[in-house]
Amino acid sequence: MSNRPETPLLDQVHTPADMQGLSDAQLKQLAREVRAETISAVSETGGHLGAGLGVVELTVALHAVFDAPKDKIIWDVSHQCYPHKILTGRRDRIRTLRQKDGLSGFTKRSESPYDPFGAAHSSTSISAALGFSVARDLGGSCDEGLGDAVAVIGDGSMSAGMAYEAMNNAGHLKKRLFVILNDNEMSIAPPVGALSSYLSKLYAERPLHDLKEVAKGAVSFLPEPFREGAKRAKDMLKGMATGGTLFEALGFNYIGPIDGHDMDQLLPVLRTLKERATGPVLIHVLTQKGKGYAPAEAAADKGHGVNKFDVITGKQHKAPSNAPSYTGVFSKALLDEAARDTKVCAVTAAMPDGTGLKQFQDRYPSRCFDVGIAEQHAVTFAAGLAAGGLRPFCALYSTFLQRGYDQVVHDVAIQRLPVRFAIDRAGLVGADGSTHAGAFDTAFLANLPDFVVMAAADEAELVHMVATATAYDQGPISFRYPRGEGTGVEMPERGIPLEIGKGRMIKEGKGVAILSFGTRLQEVLQACEALEARGITPTVADARFAKPLDRDLILKLVETHDAMITVEEGSIGGFASHVSHLLAEEGVFDRGFKFRSMVLPDIFIDQASPRDMYAVAGLNAEDIEAKVLDVMGIEALGKRA
Amino acid sequence: MSNRPETPLLDQVHTPADMQGLSDAQLKQLAREVRAETISAVSETGGHLGAGLGVVELTVALHAVFDAPKDKIIWDVSHQCYPHKILTGRRDRIRTLRQKDGLSGFTKRSESPYDPFGAAHSSTSISAALGFSVARDLGGSCDEGLGDAVAVIGDGSMSAGMAYEAMNNAGHLKKRLFVILNDNEMSIAPPVGALSSYLSKLYAERPLHDLKEVAKGAVSFLPEPFREGAKRAKDMLKGMATGGTLFEALGFNYIGPIDGHDMDQLLPVLRTLKERATGPVLIHVLTQKGKGYAPAEAAADKGHGVNKFDVITGKQHKAPSNAPSYTGVFSKALLDEAARDTKVCAVTAAMPDGTGLKQFQDRYPSRCFDVGIAEQHAVTFAAGLAAGGLRPFCALYSTFLQRGYDQVVHDVAIQRLPVRFAIDRAGLVGADGSTHAGAFDTAFLANLPDFVVMAAADEAELVHMVATATAYDQGPISFRYPRGEGTGVEMPERGIPLEIGKGRMIKEGKGVAILSFGTRLQEVLQACEALEARGITPTVADARFAKPLDRDLILKLVETHDAMITVEEGSIGGFASHVSHLLAEEGVFDRGFKFRSMVLPDIFIDQASPRDMYAVAGLNAEDIEAKVLDVMGIEALGKRA
Repeated sequence: MSNRPETPLLDQVHTPADMQGLSDAQLKQLAREVRAETISAVSETGGHLGAGLGVVELTVALHAVFDAPKDKIIWDVSHQCYPHKILTGRRDRIRTLRQKDGLSGFTKRSESPYDPFGAAHSSTSISAALGFSVARDLGGSCDEGLGDAVAVIGDGSMSAGMAYEAMNNAGHLKKRLFVILNDNEMSIAPPVGALSSYLSKLYAERPLHDLKEVAKGAVSFLPEPFREGAKRAKDMLKGMATGGTLFEALGFNYIGPIDGHDMDQLLPVLRTLKERATGPVLIHVLTQKGKGYAPAEAAADKGHGVNKFDVITGKQHKAPSNAPSYTGVFSKALLDEAARDTKVCAVTAAMPDGTGLKQFQDRYPSRCFDVGIAEQHAVTFAAGLAAGGLRPFCALYSTFLQRGYDQVVHDVAIQRLPVRFAIDRAGLVGADGSTHAGAFDTAFLANLPDFVVMAAADEAELVHMVATATAYDQGPISFRYPRGEGTGVEMPERGIPLEIGKGRMIKEGKGVAILSFGTRLQEVLQACEALEARGITPTVADARFAKPLDRDLILKLVETHDAMITVEEGSIGGFASHVSHLLAEEGVFDRGFKFRSMVLPDIFIDQASPRDMYAVAGLNAEDIEAKVLDVMGIEALGKRA
Repeated sequence: MSNRPETPLLDQVHTPADMQGLSDAQLKQLAREVRAETISAVSETGGHLGAGLGVVELTVALHAVFDAPKDKIIWDVSHQCYPHKILTGRRDRIRTLRQKDGLSGFTKRSESPYDPFGAAHSSTSISAALGFSVARDLGGSCDEGLGDAVAVIGDGSMSAGMAYEAMNNAGHLKKRLFVILNDNEMSIAPPVGALSSYLSKLYAERPLHDLKEVAKGAVSFLPEPFREGAKRAKDMLKGMATGGTLFEALGFNYIGPIDGHDMDQLLPVLRTLKERATGPVLIHVLTQKGKGYAPAEAAADKGHGVNKFDVITGKQHKAPSNAPSYTGVFSKALLDEAARDTKVCAVTAAMPDGTGLKQFQDRYPSRCFDVGIAEQHAVTFAAGLAAGGLRPFCALYSTFLQRGYDQVVHDVAIQRLPVRFAIDRAGLVGADGSTHAGAFDTAFLANLPDFVVMAAADEAELVHMVATATAYDQGPISFRYPRGEGTGVEMPERGIPLEIGKGRMIKEGKGVAILSFGTRLQEVLQACEALEARGITPTVADARFAKPLDRDLILKLVETHDAMITVEEGSIGGFASHVSHLLAEEGVFDRGFKFRSMVLPDIFIDQASPRDMYAVAGLNAEDIEAKVLDVMGIEALGKRA
């Protein structure tokens, strides 16, 4: 507590209503206090720091001018929402961010009426805001009332097609709608794509300080008789002196760029717009990620995601790690393959660090493609690379692969193009919570004809699967692996391609056969240890493939056991469903055979440690142990039948 | 045969190589003959007519200038590819278009080396073309060699975010790449969105005939010393005299607009670009859908999709229909609900006709939203409408819902927003083939927590499901129904909401229980008729819900029967998997119970009549009959055990 900043004004502001009557000078003071509080809170919890620091002034200005929760302020991605949470009744819980039973690290409808539309994936805010605007005009209603809709979206998020689709529709409908382009030239990684160069050009052509004087004139887009002064203001406010901007082409009025840390620009511009705008407006605001906290400003990622840290020094506390991360193992294995095979190339959607492709990008810049937040394009672009005879790895988080699902079906699977999908963050992911869970990939891939679907049981397996994928040119292939550290197994010198559709025996036992798909294998083995203490010795096999299934292995296990339990960190419809379909069609159930499947439960699981999340899911060792006992008809807790 | 056009020049052109040495005058003649042949062929087969007629000159010009199959000409959506097929070795089979064992109605890699990247869904071409361009530069290889990549994309397809993502990436990579924007102001429906107005403005500012003179000067974008003449040509060629275009903002050189039916513009522009372009170029070509065939030009949809027709009169042959189409029934039922409930609204992604929302749009224009080819936005926009207290129906084809999958998960399901998904074209669709099959929706929706997933067994059920969805405000809900006509059942006066999660008994029998989900119910009943002739009387139930399952009904059927067969027109991972999971966890299999599931097989099924496709799938009455006999241990074909 002693390290907490002095925040005399913020202490009086519990909700935006408490900001009524504050002078502009006080609002500036409030922003300073919110910044200090944000830094202090994140130093205790870890989390997304840089994005929030970049929008402190914008957050205060929006809440000073707009009337939330009636007005809908929608934060795109929403990892920049901590200052917003501090100002909207959640300061008392802000030091529980991203923790079990604490505040979500993102906006969330169920958490607060000030979060009208939750987010975590990018580029959804304009669509949602347009929905609210239209609903208001059509007589919709909700508890807080329906006022204006404001989407706050970063320049990185603007590279996603979805944002463009929404702008195109909003420009057509001409509803009053506010889109604030928070241009910090930095989403998670440095920005890529032509749009980014374009935005730089937009503000390079006019120095910022020129705008301060005319900010109050930001009214010229209104359908009013043109006065010479307004005309001049218009020219000044537009980034390009000659002709329209991309946003104007899409039907928006364009205002900006303005300095997003200067309340003397933000407040008058927003006030004027709030009072007088009639159609869709895009306000181009320049901010600095990590603003106002030297260690974040100095960091390469501008303090994007941090561990707990010391406020004075900025030094982060890192937990010692015993084993390499799966992401790191993938990264190294791919580099290894690429060194031997010049046709290996890689595609990431704005996540070179998160997916481990950064090293590949550094070593083979011409063979690595960061396409921006654009999973749809990423997948079909990879399909084109494969059709052109390369060996592309498309590295995405499981949850973001959902964005490219149609492209996986239509461009990759139907054409049997050998795109390699490296699916990171498969399973439950911890602090990022339900929006980032990799729950559905096995279910939505394994039902596609001719798709090879693998899951790594440990980091050595992952190395072999990278080799398998590299060697496999017959069609699409995927392998999934979780967030976090490996198990510390001995690592192979280099990857050896696996035989397609063949699993492996881990442990011969009797009675119950446990068929594992993915990294729950470690929990299965722990469960077996506990069971062995009571004389129960299940057989354990690692399926490796959800498709094609290892029929021989599975049917042999059926023949030699009384029961089978499948275990996976994915939803129903995936590995278990394929095994059960096989058993049904083979008539295994006709003669009585005990079959159970352990899958992610039918709920979205809130953030916690991965271990706690798997406890909720019922997929930890003790759950597996209980399942074995249950299927054997033995009561748990030592009471043997 | 007597009606076939005279095509003396085309008769000599079997592949593009045969076009070498033809004069420009002969190429014009060739175009005329290709147009006549296209009309003649489609008059016999039915299919997509208007789009192909609009690109006849463009097709001839592209093949005259580019060197396919080494150069990769990629037709977006590709329903405009018939002239291309005629010129690339497939004229002898052109009258088998869209028929069983005939040519696909789309481009298809497995059909011809001249189809380097198949399509059917829109907006994939730029991503694929960029992949080929990059592959060439990185030393990729394929049988035909790797030359230039040319994407031909319509203005409607340009409204999809995926096209924007690809442009943004291509503009950044700066590879030589040709994108031809085929601007006919008409995709399937009249175009919507701000982009469309923008394109109109681009060509409204300069009359077309001005450009003819300067077309040969289309070189000014090259990094050469500026000459006054080139400068002038540049200004002329750009649609907007002042400043850059949207495409230039995205890093493309913009050329156009030019008249896409004027070979004297097309040929010199393409030749110049082929010779000298260095980076990505967008060529804006204006065409007329249905061009050169009066009945198509006169039609409201410009002859988009036609039945067989009389070439002279243009009169289409329509098969008499006995029952209303499912689409029509949905359309009417929704109108009925909307009349009683002003909160009912609707969203379509460029398919007001295909989804039956046209009538809704006409009657309630302010409550109907055609967002363009933009399924991602469509879903999240609907989520915003729902959050604003409206009752949105998002009407999409099953196959296109794949485009919005992440939005379904992230914006609708996790937030439990009551978006109603009306899923048309569920199951196999006939002439449009595998790319349009609605195979995966049940699998990818029913594993989402709190989602209600229904399938209509007949058109009366569909009416009730529309009512059910309207009344259900607790969370997301979907209902699927197939392409084509209903079964002719008696229609209810109005829809009555069904009890959520309750199926219905259709026919009490014994021995085998058949649990049907969707319109295969009719085939089930036919199978039962045949079985009854041999004294076998299965029980039949209609599950109605894949989620939540009717546990009571299912477990009661298990108790009172020896076997259960599920039947659905969807992939593994869907309804059957949920039923089988329930049975496994309930221990039903432990004591021996015969369970089989009939799902779509693990192959992509080529176009044919729906009945033939279901025969391939093994989901017709005779297949169901055989399955019942098999599970009873009785040999089929009258040989009872």
